[in-house]
Amino acid sequence: MNALVKPAPDAVIAAQRPGFSLEQPFYCSEDFFRLDMDCVLSRKWLLVDHVSRIPNPGDYFLFEIGSESIIVVRTAEGRVNAFFNVCRHRGSRICLDAEGNRRTLSCPYHAWVYNLDGSLRTARLMPEGFDASTYNLHPCHVRVYHGLIFLCLSPGDPPDFDALYGGFARTLDFHGFADAKVAVRRNYPNAANWKLVVENFIECYHCAPAHREYCEVHPADQLLALGAGPGSGPQEATEQYQPKLDAWLESTRKLGHPTDEIDEDENTENMAQLVRMPINDRGFLSETRDGSLACRKLMGRFRETDGGETALVFNPVSYILAFNDFAMMVRFTPRDALNTDAELVWLVHKDAEEGKDYDVDHLTWVWDTTIRQDKTITENNQLGVLSSRYRPGPYSDHEARVRTFTAWYLRHLGEGVAGT
Amino acid sequence: MNALVKPAPDAVIAAQRPGFSLEQPFYCSEDFFRLDMDCVLSRKWLLVDHVSRIPNPGDYFLFEIGSESIIVVRTAEGRVNAFFNVCRHRGSRICLDAEGNRRTLSCPYHAWVYNLDGSLRTARLMPEGFDASTYNLHPCHVRVYHGLIFLCLSPGDPPDFDALYGGFARTLDFHGFADAKVAVRRNYPNAANWKLVVENFIECYHCAPAHREYCEVHPADQLLALGAGPGSGPQEATEQYQPKLDAWLESTRKLGHPTDEIDEDENTENMAQLVRMPINDRGFLSETRDGSLACRKLMGRFRETDGGETALVFNPVSYILAFNDFAMMVRFTPRDALNTDAELVWLVHKDAEEGKDYDVDHLTWVWDTTIRQDKTITENNQLGVLSSRYRPGPYSDHEARVRTFTAWYLRHLGEGVAGT
Amino acid sequence: MNALVKPAPDAVIAAQRPGFSLEQPFYCSEDFFRLDMDCVLSRKWLLVDHVSRIPNPGDYFLFEIGSESIIVVRTAEGRVNAFFNVCRHRGSRICLDAEGNRRTLSCPYHAWVYNLDGSLRTARLMPEGFDASTYNLHPCHVRVYHGLIFLCLSPGDPPDFDALYGGFARTLDFHGFADAKVAVRRNYPNAANWKLVVENFIECYHCAPAHREYCEVHPADQLLALGAGPGSGPQEATEQYQPKLDAWLESTRKLGHPTDEIDEDENTENMAQLVRMPINDRGFLSETRDGSLACRKLMGRFRETDGGETALVFNPVSYILAFNDFAMMVRFTPRDALNTDAELVWLVHKDAEEGKDYDVDHLTWVWDTTIRQDKTITENNQLGVLSSRYRPGPYSDHEARVRTFTAWYLRHLGEGVAGT
Repeated sequence: MNALVKPAPDAVIAAQRPGFSLEQPFYCSEDFFRLDMDCVLSRKWLLVDHVSRIPNPGDYFLFEIGSESIIVVRTAEGRVNAFFNVCRHRGSRICLDAEGNRRTLSCPYHAWVYNLDGSLRTARLMPEGFDASTYNLHPCHVRVYHGLIFLCLSPGDPPDFDALYGGFARTLDFHGFADAKVAVRRNYPNAANWKLVVENFIECYHCAPAHREYCEVHPADQLLALGAGPGSGPQEATEQYQPKLDAWLESTRKLGHPTDEIDEDENTENMAQLVRMPINDRGFLSETRDGSLACRKLMGRFRETDGGETALVFNPVSYILAFNDFAMMVRFTPRDALNTDAELVWLVHKDAEEGKDYDVDHLTWVWDTTIRQDKTITENNQLGVLSSRYRPGPYSDHEARVRTFTAWYLRHLGEGVAGT
Repeated sequence: MNALVKPAPDAVIAAQRPGFSLEQPFYCSEDFFRLDMDCVLSRKWLLVDHVSRIPNPGDYFLFEIGSESIIVVRTAEGRVNAFFNVCRHRGSRICLDAEGNRRTLSCPYHAWVYNLDGSLRTARLMPEGFDASTYNLHPCHVRVYHGLIFLCLSPGDPPDFDALYGGFARTLDFHGFADAKVAVRRNYPNAANWKLVVENFIECYHCAPAHREYCEVHPADQLLALGAGPGSGPQEATEQYQPKLDAWLESTRKLGHPTDEIDEDENTENMAQLVRMPINDRGFLSETRDGSLACRKLMGRFRETDGGETALVFNPVSYILAFNDFAMMVRFTPRDALNTDAELVWLVHKDAEEGKDYDVDHLTWVWDTTIRQDKTITENNQLGVLSSRYRPGPYSDHEARVRTFTAWYLRHLGEGVAGT
Repeated sequence: MNALVKPAPDAVIAAQRPGFSLEQPFYCSEDFFRLDMDCVLSRKWLLVDHVSRIPNPGDYFLFEIGSESIIVVRTAEGRVNAFFNVCRHRGSRICLDAEGNRRTLSCPYHAWVYNLDGSLRTARLMPEGFDASTYNLHPCHVRVYHGLIFLCLSPGDPPDFDALYGGFARTLDFHGFADAKVAVRRNYPNAANWKLVVENFIECYHCAPAHREYCEVHPADQLLALGAGPGSGPQEATEQYQPKLDAWLESTRKLGHPTDEIDEDENTENMAQLVRMPINDRGFLSETRDGSLACRKLMGRFRETDGGETALVFNPVSYILAFNDFAMMVRFTPRDALNTDAELVWLVHKDAEEGKDYDVDHLTWVWDTTIRQDKTITENNQLGVLSSRYRPGPYSDHEARVRTFTAWYLRHLGEGVAGT
């Protein structure tokens, strides 16, 4: 009868072996997916988009994760607000299109009208005693930071944004994110649990076997040392690569470019990271097929190229890779236990013109190629994990950040399950 | 761990707040869907079709709801019988096509043959002691009433049909339903729980925002007062409209047309309703785009037009809207927790000829347009209700019947769950 | 509340009535499907393919059942090995294509490389203390017998192959299975539980109603007596047919052809059967539309035709029907509770040439036609079994082997559930 009895989540968490991939239910069960949403993902500041998507008053877009839909809208005063896309009357979605412009948020069902601050403005024919002020839209925590829009879906207080992300300020400022615009946006659905998608993204152990094109852009010693960020590679390789990195950092500092670093471990809120490094040692100016610039207009305060790459990790589902001339937001958004969207958003200087300053194919080639390969990889990983013979396996020294992620995830989940 | 524990149905029922839309599980969970089938829908007389669909001996059609398939068949003697489409041998479906003609009900699997009265006629090679008389088809309660076919799927006794529906007799007779025929049949699948589909149909609060075309046919004061039947609007609006209604009722009575009324509340078996009213005060003869007749041949005993509309509510999933020249059956049939078919069947006088007496586009335009809009509405309602932030909201004074429906539904469900 | 409480598996097993089709949950529930996989199907030797599919060193194919994927591969030494297609590192599938050739089994994710004996050969950058010898691929029990490949997915010891199947040796040898090749392979997905697919295959009660073409090939008296193997028909019919069968057996023995028989009941491991019989008494040389040979090259040691059919039943999901000139493997492979693949593999002499010695349409016509009809049947059976009114029904005398199968299945399941 054991086959039908599911162990309790805390027992599964306790059974987990450090340094090994997760037990099967974490990657496969809808029950754990609900816990992931409630205890982990809803409590984080998620990087969802760039303000240039909603430049004008009334512009909105929808952010969707799991069963949730969030309206992110710019008010007449220029503020960015966010609300759950659920009418307080009978629950209908209010905005149906992925993006648009609205003077008010009027529900298409019964025309309850909300102001862009979420307050209920009109509800016809309500019974005596109806208190409109108690039927405002459910707000979603929102923070715009250097042009980046972050949401936190928590029903309670969100984490302290500035305390968590202040260390990114100088770098974000120098890269000019506030003055960027979206050049291209592409979604890559993965038939895999979000944690398999994340694990894949934070290790470069698979780069050599799976990403030929990416490995032609970046040198092997660098990919080994910090191909997936600081601490992602074996210690020895990191030490060997360090002099090269230091020399480059020194040269870029001479140009006045920032080289701030952040490197948080599993005992932090976000496992945040910030690092700068050269793309390679072959003179590449940008992360493109041939190393030429992807955009003739440099971003932010870059006046001369340093051939550098800036990796910003806000949490395990929110990333930016930034170069002198463009940047790419990476957003991993679960749909259900077995499906996760990977959305890539390429940013360039707001004054750059497509066709003149940048070419979309040239801009997107490296990561469009790489993320498609990752899709194949993670989907085959998921299929294998569904087998009765799947057993958690040991992480290599080149997967150090995955080990960190697993510990970070289990800690968050355990605390959530314990209600702490 | 709370995220994984589902509250018991009776607790969810008890937690429900009167005058508010239902709690999330009622609209989303497969568990509640099974309870809905067992405790509510299977115990009602469902309006399923019109006898003109099976005019000849051996004619049959299938009625399908949830996982059930019912064969409705006319016998050689002209009787209409109904049976579960499940062979008593090993359970195969017996009739595979949606409709057809059969002299006997012969199972295509092993050729067990049943008579049209459901009795097992032939079962080859059965073992000694096999008693054929104990393997008749499972009957389904069926009642033909003025040409309308009703089924009740209850394994026990059905409700007393005549006691419940006798009050409709004079109106059904005058409209000539027994002498009608099916002109058009269309199915509109909705990705929504059946209760959301029902709630949408029994309030006209959404008419102004969502049904421009419908509102061009019917006047605003009428839609407000009784756009979804008696008691569907605010009391004040109803009182204001009453003189207009009374004047029209008086005039139609002078023509000898019946004006019987039924208006049951939530404490009844069916929330049945019967009401007559004018289509509008602009001389519309029928509920068509321009008010001209949809069919040149009037139905039943109508000899002159009164421009009236007759609404017949047999229960929350079974409706007829009837005019002088045509009628429309409305059937809401759940498939599973998140899917419901809305089937519309347009009826005209049996002697009316398509192309000569009626044109299908003209006949169907108002409701084909309206029900497609309803599909969009209810599907977006369902999506919003799936959100973690969905909370039951207060019904307006223009949704009085929805309030009634919710109370009616919860009472039935509670009694079913309690086993009473 | 009863509607939501599921009875425990042992209670459902105990409630089952002998001689009747199974209770609804056995055919419909995912819970029982998991039990079926664990307690029944994973403990059997499943006939999965023919060695001619992987003639050369490094040739492999995948066998997939439920959520499992098994790599069956030929080593450099010519041995056939089988492994779960799950990398011991993080669980990725290793082989992605249905078949191919590989010198080593190299995981496409992180390039862990396994030898064709399953041993881990290379795992880059593993931490100190990593013991490669403990990360070999999970083996799957495999046995090649007269060219036929059998797998047993049990995590424990498999049943004793030779003890179980030694009785088939002389017949398999005479038919020359070791010297056969795959001529055609076709998959027929059935939207039905695997037990409905099996039940359909082991009775010929449905032959007359459902298989006109099959009945034109085989005579009625034979189909009645042993249309689905020994013991599948009524005793009287079997006795009546016996003299005809005996006469034919006598004649074929004179030709030196084997007539070994196996006929196991429900109290055995496999319900195995072996029987030879004439195709019909109209001189058919092979089971083809017109009785002419399907392949000009006879199989094995046949030098002259005896017009016979050999039925080999290895267990309820593994069959071979063999004729003088060709054979057909039948494999029923569940995907989930409501889906089962029926795969047919036609075998001919390894030296036979398509177009010259055999024509694919001629070779496949009888069973391609018949198994498509079976698909319709079993899918309609499943739909009926999902109804609330489905009740287990009594098996006829012509379904004797289904009765045996039901008893066999319940015994295995009960033992598995009891953990014995």
